[in-house]
Amino acid sequence: MPAGTEIERKFLVAAMPDLAAARATPIRQGYVTRPEDSIEVRLRQKGEAYLVTIKSGEGMVRGEHETAIPRAAFDALWPAVSGTITKTRWTGQLPDGHVYEIDIFDAPHAPLVVVEVEFPSEAAAHAFVPPDWFGREVSGEKAYSNKVLAFGG
Amino acid sequence: MPAGTEIERKFLVAAMPDLAAARATPIRQGYVTRPEDSIEVRLRQKGEAYLVTIKSGEGMVRGEHETAIPRAAFDALWPAVSGTITKTRWTGQLPDGHVYEIDIFDAPHAPLVVVEVEFPSEAAAHAFVPPDWFGREVSGEKAYSNKVLAFGG
Repeated sequence: MPAGTEIERKFLVAAMPDLAAARATPIRQGYVTRPEDSIEVRLRQKGEAYLVTIKSGEGMVRGEHETAIPRAAFDALWPAVSGTITKTRWTGQLPDGHVYEIDIFDAPHAPLVVVEVEFPSEAAAHAFVPPDWFGREVSGEKAYSNKVLAFGG
Repeated sequence: MPAGTEIERKFLVAAMPDLAAARATPIRQGYVTRPEDSIEVRLRQKGEAYLVTIKSGEGMVRGEHETAIPRAAFDALWPAVSGTITKTRWTGQLPDGHVYEIDIFDAPHAPLVVVEVEFPSEAAAHAFVPPDWFGREVSGEKAYSNKVLAFGG
């Protein structure tokens, strides 16, 4: 599988689980490029980490380059973003061992809450049995992509 | 005049001047975005400085955001560029006090050499008398824009 490929399933959240053992990370991300541009340049603050991510190409020739930058550099570039998202990510573990990430979106996307689980293989993704608190699966639905949400789509 | 606006005139170089008192800076720059994208994201190494520049919009609402980033971050993002330029910039002063920048382009743009002079006002730009070693003026000619050159235009 190409570098950077992730096998994930994404669901709505039917009921919030007990987050006592989970870890919260505030995230804000913004897109420097527009959805119609050929390249995606994203800025993301994840806790105390400041990241630039560049995604290019489609299909077999997708490239992804990501790096951390100092906070001052992030602050200088942040005014250049158009679409933005802020959310709190709760990371925890399911009884079957899988790691989940619950994203609780701030306004204007609240009360949207989604949960993602990443898998080491497609077989593992297919075999996954969602817990009761998972809601409808929205994997691959454009309306739930962060970029679409950021631009108010 | 809007922030980030520069008043410059650009010329070909008819004959190289004496560079004994000038200062050389190696420059390489590459564009993350494509010319047809709505945003321009440029990486530039200028001597030991590593810069990210984002230019957006057109006409009256142009924005420009630039920041220095660590070399390691620059190196991580550089593979994402498509069009590139490398050149050596010689910075010196004309007898009338104006600062000139001679850009000597490396392959594949060699033997292109241009010189630029920046002015504090349009009046100063109009009043400027080019020295004998300046060649034809190419201010505003797209063919001599760095972005066009970078993409082989």
